[in-house]
Amino acid sequence: AEEPEGIKLITCFSLSFKCFRRNQSLHGPSPVTTFGPKACMLQNPHAVMHIQDPASQRLTWNKPPKSVLVVKKIQDASLLQPFKELCVFLTEQKNMIVYVESKVLADTAIAGDESFGAVIQKFCTFREDLDDISNRVDFIICLGGDGTLLYASSLFQESVPPVMAFHLGSLGFLTPFKFDTYQSQVTQIIEGNTAIILRSRLRVRVVKKVSLVNMALGVLVQQVLNEVVVDRGPSSYLSNVDLFLDGHLITTVQGDGVIVSTPTGSTAYAVAAGASMIHPNVPAIMITPICPHSLSFRPIVVPAGVELKIMLSRDARNTAWVSFDGRKRQEICHGDSITITTSCFPVPSICFRDPVNDWFESLSQCLHWNVRKKQNYLSSEEEEF
Amino acid sequence: AEEPEGIKLITCFSLSFKCFRRNQSLHGPSPVTTFGPKACMLQNPHAVMHIQDPASQRLTWNKPPKSVLVVKKIQDASLLQPFKELCVFLTEQKNMIVYVESKVLADTAIAGDESFGAVIQKFCTFREDLDDISNRVDFIICLGGDGTLLYASSLFQESVPPVMAFHLGSLGFLTPFKFDTYQSQVTQIIEGNTAIILRSRLRVRVVKKVSLVNMALGVLVQQVLNEVVVDRGPSSYLSNVDLFLDGHLITTVQGDGVIVSTPTGSTAYAVAAGASMIHPNVPAIMITPICPHSLSFRPIVVPAGVELKIMLSRDARNTAWVSFDGRKRQEICHGDSITITTSCFPVPSICFRDPVNDWFESLSQCLHWNVRKKQNYLSSEEEEF
Amino acid sequence: AEEPEGIKLITCFSLSFKCFRRNQSLHGPSPVTTFGPKACMLQNPHAVMHIQDPASQRLTWNKPPKSVLVVKKIQDASLLQPFKELCVFLTEQKNMIVYVESKVLADTAIAGDESFGAVIQKFCTFREDLDDISNRVDFIICLGGDGTLLYASSLFQESVPPVMAFHLGSLGFLTPFKFDTYQSQVTQIIEGNTAIILRSRLRVRVVKKVSLVNMALGVLVQQVLNEVVVDRGPSSYLSNVDLFLDGHLITTVQGDGVIVSTPTGSTAYAVAAGASMIHPNVPAIMITPICPHSLSFRPIVVPAGVELKIMLSRDARNTAWVSFDGRKRQEICHGDSITITTSCFPVPSICFRDPVNDWFESLSQCLHWNVRKKQNYLSSEEEEF
Amino acid sequence: AEEPEGIKLITCFSLSFKCFRRNQSLHGPSPVTTFGPKACMLQNPHAVMHIQDPASQRLTWNKPPKSVLVVKKIQDASLLQPFKELCVFLTEQKNMIVYVESKVLADTAIAGDESFGAVIQKFCTFREDLDDISNRVDFIICLGGDGTLLYASSLFQESVPPVMAFHLGSLGFLTPFKFDTYQSQVTQIIEGNTAIILRSRLRVRVVKKVSLVNMALGVLVQQVLNEVVVDRGPSSYLSNVDLFLDGHLITTVQGDGVIVSTPTGSTAYAVAAGASMIHPNVPAIMITPICPHSLSFRPIVVPAGVELKIMLSRDARNTAWVSFDGRKRQEICHGDSITITTSCFPVPSICFRDPVNDWFESLSQCLHWNVRKKQNYLSSEEEEF
Repeated sequence: AEEPEGIKLITCFSLSFKCFRRNQSLHGPSPVTTFGPKACMLQNPHAVMHIQDPASQRLTWNKPPKSVLVVKKIQDASLLQPFKELCVFLTEQKNMIVYVESKVLADTAIAGDESFGAVIQKFCTFREDLDDISNRVDFIICLGGDGTLLYASSLFQESVPPVMAFHLGSLGFLTPFKFDTYQSQVTQIIEGNTAIILRSRLRVRVVKKVSLVNMALGVLVQQVLNEVVVDRGPSSYLSNVDLFLDGHLITTVQGDGVIVSTPTGSTAYAVAAGASMIHPNVPAIMITPICPHSLSFRPIVVPAGVELKIMLSRDARNTAWVSFDGRKRQEICHGDSITITTSCFPVPSICFRDPVNDWFESLSQCLHWNVRKKQNYLSSEEEEF
Repeated sequence: AEEPEGIKLITCFSLSFKCFRRNQSLHGPSPVTTFGPKACMLQNPHAVMHIQDPASQRLTWNKPPKSVLVVKKIQDASLLQPFKELCVFLTEQKNMIVYVESKVLADTAIAGDESFGAVIQKFCTFREDLDDISNRVDFIICLGGDGTLLYASSLFQESVPPVMAFHLGSLGFLTPFKFDTYQSQVTQIIEGNTAIILRSRLRVRVVKKVSLVNMALGVLVQQVLNEVVVDRGPSSYLSNVDLFLDGHLITTVQGDGVIVSTPTGSTAYAVAAGASMIHPNVPAIMITPICPHSLSFRPIVVPAGVELKIMLSRDARNTAWVSFDGRKRQEICHGDSITITTSCFPVPSICFRDPVNDWFESLSQCLHWNVRKKQNYLSSEEEEF
Repeated sequence: AEEPEGIKLITCFSLSFKCFRRNQSLHGPSPVTTFGPKACMLQNPHAVMHIQDPASQRLTWNKPPKSVLVVKKIQDASLLQPFKELCVFLTEQKNMIVYVESKVLADTAIAGDESFGAVIQKFCTFREDLDDISNRVDFIICLGGDGTLLYASSLFQESVPPVMAFHLGSLGFLTPFKFDTYQSQVTQIIEGNTAIILRSRLRVRVVKKVSLVNMALGVLVQQVLNEVVVDRGPSSYLSNVDLFLDGHLITTVQGDGVIVSTPTGSTAYAVAAGASMIHPNVPAIMITPICPHSLSFRPIVVPAGVELKIMLSRDARNTAWVSFDGRKRQEICHGDSITITTSCFPVPSICFRDPVNDWFESLSQCLHWNVRKKQNYLSSEEEEF
Repeated sequence: AEEPEGIKLITCFSLSFKCFRRNQSLHGPSPVTTFGPKACMLQNPHAVMHIQDPASQRLTWNKPPKSVLVVKKIQDASLLQPFKELCVFLTEQKNMIVYVESKVLADTAIAGDESFGAVIQKFCTFREDLDDISNRVDFIICLGGDGTLLYASSLFQESVPPVMAFHLGSLGFLTPFKFDTYQSQVTQIIEGNTAIILRSRLRVRVVKKVSLVNMALGVLVQQVLNEVVVDRGPSSYLSNVDLFLDGHLITTVQGDGVIVSTPTGSTAYAVAAGASMIHPNVPAIMITPICPHSLSFRPIVVPAGVELKIMLSRDARNTAWVSFDGRKRQEICHGDSITITTSCFPVPSICFRDPVNDWFESLSQCLHWNVRKKQNYLSSEEEEF
């Protein structure tokens, strides 16, 4: 009832070969699916997914890109010159159609600049929430902080064009590019074949009992890149919300609120609330209580495939408030529900170097992660007395 | 340059259909791989992995199981009766060959029990580190705490047979089964088609410069189910170790040490050191500092596919110590290295209910996760004055 | 230049005697004030304080108490019967004048109870914020949760009469007494000589620039027993406030807000925000950031004698909100200031046993402090394999 | 039974005057000791302590100081030149007798330096643990990191001469002085009247059952400035120790160990284990678990006057280890006890500026406390879209 040794050795070698001779990889190795001499995993072809290793994910173009959305933080004078330079470059050197939001042009420093007039003439403008540009933009360039990318994400509730994000001041989590060499970098993107990271988003569905009379429902669906937050809003009193996972009540959150975040969002509000930091290529959803009443309510990380639901607890005396990447804040009352799943529309974010190096660079620059003074706290003997 | 509305709507519908009509799932949805009108992901067939949704993973048998390893914590009198009962049942009712470690039989309460003699006669015995049973055991039954399963894991450095773990006292993270209905439960396992969770392990490779003269190397490879710990050992002084990820120095750990754990291990030592808790189906590796000197050294979670390496820092004045699931403690000196990757040999752990419910049940029972007294800390007005 | 050995030994003995032969004590020992052979502390009689060891603090009466304020949480049916019983006991058995807030009597379950009418006749009633009872009440009895005591504290902005607080359901931090033996316990208080704990309060002074025209100032002074909280209020955006200590800028708080709490308050909102727990007899003020943007912003504990000031940062784009023990929430704008010092009007809270036992009992009951399942996470070898 | 209004107002005014017209102060205000119209605190003259406000504590001399101990970290080349300069200055300019530990002179870079020979001639040398210099040294100068001061503290188990500590590299918690202006600063100390901070120490008494035969006891008494640590030592397994406060079992520590620290020590090992940071003038003792098994085991701060005792739990399967400011590590077995109280022999540490500014400066320099990048995590709208 036992295999001969020789065969075993050969099997073992080939397994090692498959498992450990890999290059840069982010996906873990495929686990063996035989367990001991006789057990194995029941095959279920319908449940198999085909996923490309995130370390190998690169951007390409079906057709050459022709249109670009430029997102600029408004009311920041330091961005005016870079914005103009970039638009001239895109329009005149690259022959791109530039989309700009109308309110950006409301700034007299832009609209009143005669030397910039010829470029403005060629802009395509749009208004948020009124004009749909979701299918017209080939890629996006952001100028500003992480907020510009969150904003760009909110404009595309389904498929998101590739995003290239410049930080003008200091590095952000979502803005890896420096502006000084923008020409060569933009040129490279247009030519294609650059490393991208697919930042997963959460699809949040809020169902509100609008009326007690006709029980009409109001439904809002929103994609978030960082997090959905449910908190006590303007009230001084604890929120009490129930958290369901795949239909089962998991726990009740009693405290300032709860953050449901993507791995991208783990370094935003969640980290401030005590969460561990998760690399954006880990397929997961993070649940972080905000100032929980219970000392043992540690944050948890669940698989990306689950469905979460949040509702006000039956005995909650106050309402709660929900917001999406810090925006569109609204009240949640008894009977309303917030359903959260991983979206199938990630944000394809162009890497400066690669997903791993960019992330550690941002941890260090943005959060001073483990920046230390080399000093020994248990130092007496070590200092050689 | 724009698609007609009709087509867009149809696309949208089919996307929704693919994405959101799923049953219980743990893998996130496949992300769309087209980004805006013209961009898409560069296909790389060599980097594609085929993964079955963890929620659908079930055990089956190629041939009927014939042999079972029973792991029993020794020197625990409360386990004697269940152990005997179970062995009688397996041997006499199920006609299984029972493997038992020799030292279990050294206990006079077992060896001296005449009524149990007939069963002992049929046991196959083995000695740890001397006899290789890795290819002879069809499945494993553990009696005791989480330690029994860690021990069972250590016996199988490659493929691990399915494990069914009973807690005799209180529920453990790794021991979901109650003993009182063991007969029907064991029968069901033998018949096959039970839910399993593949608990990923870490493959740890320690390379030691054994000798300064001939530079001979000593190599130890070890699979861990919870964690590999590098700490200051018996010294009062901080350990200083460098942490590399895919060959790049990521950070230096100055403190009591560092824990590299699986998601399964996130609820063990890592949680005591401040980590968030990660569901075992998230493909990730957790890195948690132990009492770090730096206030900003928060734990991080990286993708399961990376290769980590730990070495003593160049300027470290003390050695460090490594241990594997709390065992085989050994010293790490200048020049030694510890390389850690996700193993392709997980532990197939049989679920009591399913991977999600079992986990939340253990969080609640083992860690009192978010066990609260319902009381309001901001209570003055809320209490209706 | 050296003392003979003999003398040294004698000195040493007497020092030991003074220092270590103490009974239950909460104040640390007086430090010696000579340092080596020639140095000593410069005497400054004006800066000397005379403090009685908190472990020895007991209540007494100048004259027999005649009036008692009964504070009852309203809209809680479970309190009706105890409230009535207590009032009958105080009025008829103890001949006390009972003060009750008018709105308590608005409850028809009280006002409409004929059998209780005779007692109600004898009540002295008052209205919050309209009638000053601060000098008419000899002691206070609270029925309800911690909120009742916070409310009672708010009624007495200067000297506070002794407070005896009953928890009706589960134990609270501020409500140590069980109701079932209330008669003997109330009798004992009236007779005097019971252990008390002086819970320090914070004196908070808010100065608001009311008008930009005439620069008139609005001033509010408030005593808090738990904490003063400055937070982002209904806004989604970070608050930015500057924190001054004795006139110097110490740090800027960027996050959800900041909690300045008494030791009593350290187990309330502060502990939810990550603070260590401080025994109420430690003369200190705790400063705890709420979800700070900086990973290294750990809570700090400063001496009780400092003066703290909080103002909106110059570059803050949003206002902040302040609240006092969870009440009287109001907006803080540019130029407004919040000055915080330790009050000289503590709340004399009657102990159930003594300050130490009461505290540890409440940690355990209210926060499940270190409630554990005895299980070993590093258990493999320990489990005796 | 009520005071006339006029009198009340006058009382109120005088109270305000007494309470709030204070200068820089670290002690809180004296609480009023009358509570409402009739209650007051029972006077107990035997329990009254007379404490000078820490903010007013200054050093003076009974007689001019003549001898100085210079503590130098050994085997650190960067300290040689400052050490020599300082000794020449003290010996030749100030006519002080300089005490130096023998092993400092074992360094050939010192002993072999001919130009330094004349100064060495005048040194008084001593050997640690062999020669008692506790009554011969008028003040102490430390050169090196915090470890030099911890070492100096360990040399003086009773009264400690004033200590002036220079950091040569970066600022330490205990080493506030820069070396470049050492001449004027040392001169000022010798002249007297400088601000000092009395850093409390803990008196630790270890009683060991030395022998099972004759039950002889071994007793060690040790003063610590930072902390006493009880941990699992070289073992991989959890330590289990019982913690008693004033004779009552408070809790059982199950984890890597427990730290009992002074406020000075709160910024050392304790902060790495998750403690809040306590200003050294707060009279308190901090208890911090190291990687506790229980999620709810938050650090606690108790009054300076309590007596703590630590013993191995009855059911502990492993011994524990104790160390004192990181030194003199030793094993603790069943029956051994560790008793900890606040010492009456503090370390009088000379301030660079004053106790408050020195502390905040060291938090910022040593721990990067709340060092932040000004960036907004909830930034989308705030960035003015």
